[in-house]
Amino acid sequence: MDGRQIDVFRIPMRGPADVSGLIAHIESGELDPRNIVAILGKTEGNGGVNDFTREYATAALCSGLSPFLDLPAAAVEERIAFVMSGGTEGVLSPHMTVFARRPAAHQPDHAGAKRLSIGIAMTRPFLPEEIGRASQVEATSAAVLAAMRDAAITDHADVHYVQIKCPLLTAERVEAALARGNVTVTKSSYSSMAWSRGASSLAVAVALNEIPVPVADDAILRDWNLYSGVASASAGIELMRGVVIVFGNSVHATGRYVMGHGMMRDAIDLQGLLAAFSSVGLVSRDRPMEIATDRIVNVFAKAEASPTGQVRGFRHTMLDDTDISSTRHARAAVGGLIAGLSGCGAVYVSGGAEHQGPPGGGPVAVIATVEDIASTPP
Amino acid sequence: MDGRQIDVFRIPMRGPADVSGLIAHIESGELDPRNIVAILGKTEGNGGVNDFTREYATAALCSGLSPFLDLPAAAVEERIAFVMSGGTEGVLSPHMTVFARRPAAHQPDHAGAKRLSIGIAMTRPFLPEEIGRASQVEATSAAVLAAMRDAAITDHADVHYVQIKCPLLTAERVEAALARGNVTVTKSSYSSMAWSRGASSLAVAVALNEIPVPVADDAILRDWNLYSGVASASAGIELMRGVVIVFGNSVHATGRYVMGHGMMRDAIDLQGLLAAFSSVGLVSRDRPMEIATDRIVNVFAKAEASPTGQVRGFRHTMLDDTDISSTRHARAAVGGLIAGLSGCGAVYVSGGAEHQGPPGGGPVAVIATVEDIASTPP
Amino acid sequence: MDGRQIDVFRIPMRGPADVSGLIAHIESGELDPRNIVAILGKTEGNGGVNDFTREYATAALCSGLSPFLDLPAAAVEERIAFVMSGGTEGVLSPHMTVFARRPAAHQPDHAGAKRLSIGIAMTRPFLPEEIGRASQVEATSAAVLAAMRDAAITDHADVHYVQIKCPLLTAERVEAALARGNVTVTKSSYSSMAWSRGASSLAVAVALNEIPVPVADDAILRDWNLYSGVASASAGIELMRGVVIVFGNSVHATGRYVMGHGMMRDAIDLQGLLAAFSSVGLVSRDRPMEIATDRIVNVFAKAEASPTGQVRGFRHTMLDDTDISSTRHARAAVGGLIAGLSGCGAVYVSGGAEHQGPPGGGPVAVIATVEDIASTPP
Amino acid sequence: MDGRQIDVFRIPMRGPADVSGLIAHIESGELDPRNIVAILGKTEGNGGVNDFTREYATAALCSGLSPFLDLPAAAVEERIAFVMSGGTEGVLSPHMTVFARRPAAHQPDHAGAKRLSIGIAMTRPFLPEEIGRASQVEATSAAVLAAMRDAAITDHADVHYVQIKCPLLTAERVEAALARGNVTVTKSSYSSMAWSRGASSLAVAVALNEIPVPVADDAILRDWNLYSGVASASAGIELMRGVVIVFGNSVHATGRYVMGHGMMRDAIDLQGLLAAFSSVGLVSRDRPMEIATDRIVNVFAKAEASPTGQVRGFRHTMLDDTDISSTRHARAAVGGLIAGLSGCGAVYVSGGAEHQGPPGGGPVAVIATVEDIASTPP
Repeated sequence: MDGRQIDVFRIPMRGPADVSGLIAHIESGELDPRNIVAILGKTEGNGGVNDFTREYATAALCSGLSPFLDLPAAAVEERIAFVMSGGTEGVLSPHMTVFARRPAAHQPDHAGAKRLSIGIAMTRPFLPEEIGRASQVEATSAAVLAAMRDAAITDHADVHYVQIKCPLLTAERVEAALARGNVTVTKSSYSSMAWSRGASSLAVAVALNEIPVPVADDAILRDWNLYSGVASASAGIELMRGVVIVFGNSVHATGRYVMGHGMMRDAIDLQGLLAAFSSVGLVSRDRPMEIATDRIVNVFAKAEASPTGQVRGFRHTMLDDTDISSTRHARAAVGGLIAGLSGCGAVYVSGGAEHQGPPGGGPVAVIATVEDIASTPP
Repeated sequence: MDGRQIDVFRIPMRGPADVSGLIAHIESGELDPRNIVAILGKTEGNGGVNDFTREYATAALCSGLSPFLDLPAAAVEERIAFVMSGGTEGVLSPHMTVFARRPAAHQPDHAGAKRLSIGIAMTRPFLPEEIGRASQVEATSAAVLAAMRDAAITDHADVHYVQIKCPLLTAERVEAALARGNVTVTKSSYSSMAWSRGASSLAVAVALNEIPVPVADDAILRDWNLYSGVASASAGIELMRGVVIVFGNSVHATGRYVMGHGMMRDAIDLQGLLAAFSSVGLVSRDRPMEIATDRIVNVFAKAEASPTGQVRGFRHTMLDDTDISSTRHARAAVGGLIAGLSGCGAVYVSGGAEHQGPPGGGPVAVIATVEDIASTPP
Repeated sequence: MDGRQIDVFRIPMRGPADVSGLIAHIESGELDPRNIVAILGKTEGNGGVNDFTREYATAALCSGLSPFLDLPAAAVEERIAFVMSGGTEGVLSPHMTVFARRPAAHQPDHAGAKRLSIGIAMTRPFLPEEIGRASQVEATSAAVLAAMRDAAITDHADVHYVQIKCPLLTAERVEAALARGNVTVTKSSYSSMAWSRGASSLAVAVALNEIPVPVADDAILRDWNLYSGVASASAGIELMRGVVIVFGNSVHATGRYVMGHGMMRDAIDLQGLLAAFSSVGLVSRDRPMEIATDRIVNVFAKAEASPTGQVRGFRHTMLDDTDISSTRHARAAVGGLIAGLSGCGAVYVSGGAEHQGPPGGGPVAVIATVEDIASTPP
Repeated sequence: MDGRQIDVFRIPMRGPADVSGLIAHIESGELDPRNIVAILGKTEGNGGVNDFTREYATAALCSGLSPFLDLPAAAVEERIAFVMSGGTEGVLSPHMTVFARRPAAHQPDHAGAKRLSIGIAMTRPFLPEEIGRASQVEATSAAVLAAMRDAAITDHADVHYVQIKCPLLTAERVEAALARGNVTVTKSSYSSMAWSRGASSLAVAVALNEIPVPVADDAILRDWNLYSGVASASAGIELMRGVVIVFGNSVHATGRYVMGHGMMRDAIDLQGLLAAFSSVGLVSRDRPMEIATDRIVNVFAKAEASPTGQVRGFRHTMLDDTDISSTRHARAAVGGLIAGLSGCGAVYVSGGAEHQGPPGGGPVAVIATVEDIASTPP
């Protein structure tokens, strides 16, 4: 398998449309825009239905990259996977993480050590009536495996984070299904987002053998014991396909980065977070609190308010707050903990976690530079 | 000096008016209501101007305790210091901490070891024109020293948390000053809360020799290098005096509790938080991440959005959010970190921190049970 | 039938617990507290799940009236019907409307003219599994008729406003039903409020012959063509019965007040509002804009965001706003229109209008003083 | 003076970036994009500091118009005056109003009747230290007069609405002033917006002889008795000049439109609103409630929460609400009233009204089609 080198850039944003940091990296020669495969951003909207910062950031990225790629703005979005997550509550800081991939000049010489790799795949276009159902799980699961192959990852245990963009329903799509004599899983656009995220996340669990197969229609958004420990899904109106980005480690990848993950079983699960950090050697056995924060490139986590209304037996008020949505509460709290441990607010904490980790918890992955740069090839 | 025993009860609340947990402690005989000296609560309002959960909780406590103390409800508030802090964002959990004090049956037998003590004092009534000015600092400072004596604490280093309730201005109070030919520091009720908190907090710093004396009028809410590392102030409309509650350790106190504190220099200052935990022996040198959370009785912290708009060089969006006030953001984030480290969301994290710790940071104090009552060294 | 005199007092509130205005009316002799039958209040919370101003206001009223009624505070709530509606958005002003009823000294001498009357009735206690179903409709409908009789109103057309307090489900209540082998209409407390309001409102429609009978289970919260033009329902946790208050005009009532109503077909239905005003003679045929606002005692209206996402073909954004709940938007807008027309913000505009008026619209009732007591025609 | 024809298009927007309606008007031939002089939009953000829908809408308009004007997107903003006002609370509906101006084919033949005209002028670039001070008032006042000339309006009484875009301060601009040895009126960006709006609005009052001259520095944001009855100002970061758009009626203009205005003295001033409607003949003397809503093209109003905390003696809660900013409350309420009277939610109600109408009130202007289309020239 061909070697590939992965580069990662965490770039602060001064506003949803600020692409100046990205352009600076391109103009300095550090980043060849043609190598960009994915950009994951945290933007400063409310993360809810009327959060326009996500589409605004995407539009600005398309416009900004257009001249560098010699493509019309609209075509940029077809070439690069943009995933914008709204909501930078508390200490969270707006930023983007840019992933670039290029053929490695030579095979990795780091003695078989695995390095961060990234792979992308798409599903076929879904019919509206497939959203939130077993057929979405099935097709997305196949795409996860394809993305793994694209990432040159063979072992499930080497997959540490799977980001999925999935479609949602609109009134027109619901109508189109009805015209075919079929009923969609819901008529509500908003609810369809949860259905699509749930099915996509279970697809990851299926692909990685985390749960038994097959997944029945009625397990989706119902059987919360079924979940993936590495899935992160977000629904968007702009596509009817699923886009799958697999992140993990591969012997065929070279570069300065490794990835690992852990599982936060609830929103205050310090040990789950430390397990993620330990998995890439950020925590020494003797001095666990002296985290090697300077090696952290970014942390990717899902957060949600515990549906029981309690965290470890103590009542929380996130689900009863008519002023602030529970997703904002959850991002702020989990973001506070992760930022505290990693020493930086520019971390990717995203809300809404159907079948993404256990109820009230969520996966947490970390990308770090390898410990000893000297031995890393250029 | 007479020995005294301090008891502390952390009691969850199912709503702002829920006193059932408190009553249960009284009826079980664990807590003699006549010994209650102070109750610090976290209630689930927005913590802002229109947060009525604070006064509602106080009213419910007065009504609930009234029959047990054989006092009219209105008289209960004169006997017990109630400090209600609104805002249980993120994983924070509504609860009250009840402090009771009674004469010790005998002198402490723990070989001179210090135990949690508590003392209370009041200032004279202030004139409206004194609020937010040097004379408030001076008089409150004297009350801090009086409360230390009441707590039988002689060494400044043994004071770990000073909670102050201080007055605010109203239109009538501003008018009354004008009628005397005097001008108040502000005409705005809302602003006067910050002025009063700031002067009160500087009073703590003066009393504990944390800053040079005297404090000039124009240093208040201006010279942010002046602050106390243990002050926590809140302004209330119901009084014109200051009420000072000093918490710390004393050789004259007995009981199961010790207190310590640290300083969070910013909202993600993990090491500052760990220092507080270490000060009461919750963190072992070898295994700093294995915090003895089962010994934690409660954590008391102030949180605020960094006024620079950044935390460690990364932009935060708390001050620019027109949808959610920055105090709510800050409590959610700091609460997430503290809850994560202490394994519990029922911690006392309060917003608004003028001269309470450095800008963007705040004091953090912890009450813990003693490790092994028999063997604790002096 | 015995004559009765109705008195109505609209009293501003300076805060949720402000009963000083009410007490002043009592102490001045204007209002005999033993005659109070119902108090409808607008309190300044968010009107949502975590709006504690409603229960706080009720608690303050119970405490405040307790000495005047020589009853323990808890017993006051059994004697007087309190209906607190949260949310004073925009120009809406916190206030209470106190309704008092006493035997008339003599039969009405206004020549058979009808005057404002009020009647109250309760349903039997409901089982949890009845909430939101046809049996709730049926029993509540009987209570509406009983309240009509209590109000001495015989003609359906004389009923202008029916306020219902109805029960909701809690986890315990859902469990209790399950233990009996029965399933509740929903497991969610929040959703159960809508179910209970919907069933209660349809009960009014049934009692007043506004819709065909019987109402099937599956029409509730589904067939939005079924609605009452005079119902206003709110769900509360404190009761398992329904409490019905009927307002209308009766020949057996005396006093200075008459009532009428109209229907706002959408949130900007000026003509519907004017129809309500016209029904009590506030609008002259020649000068419709010169409304006799000095005769208005209060206006009672329900408001909701149009579920189609549009008002008269123009998109609104109330349902997509993750920052502000749609009920707050709707109250602010409808409150602005009603306050503008009636010249006063202390009007009772309440949100959530399942089967209360057409989708996106709602009933609007008005109480006015009679034009010229001496000369009013029959 | 040359004749000119003004065209006005009110176009709904399906989202902040929706320019499809505008493009449709262009492609249908109704609107020549080269004639567009100004676009005033209502976008669906929160209208506060972090409302990105304004800049997002402007960016989308620039991109969308760019190919039609054969200009780079950045150059479009220099050619057309874009004024985006955030906040579509309650029934307000996102939309844009497009103003186009072209030379009239022939002199107006409507017998000297005045028709809607529009004129634009810019001030010189301001120094940061001029913002919010008398020199901004002076220079802006001159620009108002220049814009009047551009609109071919000679009589002050024919000016019905003056929209101003004005600069604000940033940290860099404050620093630049300091480097010159000058102090700005405030260091806060947020506060500088109010200062700049206030000075700009007083400039309109000066130009139109509404207040005595000169305006002293210390009258700005202090003497609230000074205000313009037709000014509407908004501050933006993108410019250091002031841009002034004068709307009114001129004998030199032709087209189907006339304009008038009134003054709402408070947020529920129905009569002030009716006066505006009457000024363009929408209200008949005999049937004032039968407003000719089909002739309304758009209504332009400013709204704010009364700074006294009361509206006609009744307390409002807008200024004490920590959950929703007072500007959102005010727009929702005033929008509800205006939409109710005009039968449409797509009206331009904008918040923040320093020196724009009396405290708690604001100007309200209306554009209507002329009554008798038959007599209007093409």
